[in-house]
Amino acid sequence: MDKRIITISREFGSGGRYIGKQVAEQLGIEFYDKEIIGKIAEKTGLAEDFIEKVGEYAPSKSIFAYSLAGRTSFGVSVEDYLNSVQRKIILDIAEQQPCVIVGRCADYILRERTDCINIFIHGNVEQKTERIVKLYNVSETEAQKLMKDMDKKRSVNYSYYTDQKWGNVKNYMMTLNSSEIGIEKCADLIASL
Amino acid sequence: MDKRIITISREFGSGGRYIGKQVAEQLGIEFYDKEIIGKIAEKTGLAEDFIEKVGEYAPSKSIFAYSLAGRTSFGVSVEDYLNSVQRKIILDIAEQQPCVIVGRCADYILRERTDCINIFIHGNVEQKTERIVKLYNVSETEAQKLMKDMDKKRSVNYSYYTDQKWGNVKNYMMTLNSSEIGIEKCADLIASL
Repeated sequence: MDKRIITISREFGSGGRYIGKQVAEQLGIEFYDKEIIGKIAEKTGLAEDFIEKVGEYAPSKSIFAYSLAGRTSFGVSVEDYLNSVQRKIILDIAEQQPCVIVGRCADYILRERTDCINIFIHGNVEQKTERIVKLYNVSETEAQKLMKDMDKKRSVNYSYYTDQKWGNVKNYMMTLNSSEIGIEKCADLIASL
Repeated sequence: MDKRIITISREFGSGGRYIGKQVAEQLGIEFYDKEIIGKIAEKTGLAEDFIEKVGEYAPSKSIFAYSLAGRTSFGVSVEDYLNSVQRKIILDIAEQQPCVIVGRCADYILRERTDCINIFIHGNVEQKTERIVKLYNVSETEAQKLMKDMDKKRSVNYSYYTDQKWGNVKNYMMTLNSSEIGIEKCADLIASL
């Protein structure tokens, strides 16, 4: 079976987004990360900033508070609505052409396709901190707080929309520790699949 | 940092042992799996058959029953004794030469070395069943029972001796689904690290 789609889930600071971009360039295929936000904005008329804030990181409060506060009177929260639009866009993208998709539960959304390669990129705290400090120009303490916070949100969001555990080895064809393997080498390994 | 040791943890039927052997051959380094049993027999005077049965798959009963029944009057069970001998042998082997070690909590035992590559090989039920049926000449039902039983034992044994969760992505530099990637390709990917 030929594989056409590569989904990349990643810990914050692991370089997963950059690795995905490298893979797409090496293979000459499309790359989707923030590009998906533009497509959601087009479809919904909502501002990209708002979508980005809500998008991958909802629900931002605890599931309990969220379920009380976040629902509209029709029983659908903004987060759920955005998620359903995002879901359709990802299904469309996958139908159209070979590509790399970063985050956004794409591995789960596309689980019924047999042409997906699902990858998880993680790393060691020390190297991820170093990367975040450089990229976001923050202190080490801020970087570690950010890292914890973002991964928590990604994990909660993933569990909420997929009923699976984020980073569970069984969901991925390959997982890589980018701190130990190196970012360029990770891209090479994925492209070689 | 040069990596000298490759440890391979694997689900039963995933072909992890065979992949390890291939990697060792490709790299021209030593391969240890059952070879370790011979070394334990030498050191303890116990029969290889007995060591094999107790070795990687203890505690075979529930931890509770085990802790009641398995301890000697000195408070050390045969399993714990064998495990400590095995631990010393693995530390020695790693000190001596580059090698591939399959199973036996080697990733945990060698966790303080910085020259280890830890790999986890898993697979899909369908392909693992097929492999076990062929290799052990059993029915599909027997294969699936065997698979469940062996993985359970490996998992319990690993948790018992390491306080870590078997197959947790964070413990491995790389995890591979051999059913999707193919066994030969898995060996190539590991050797290329």
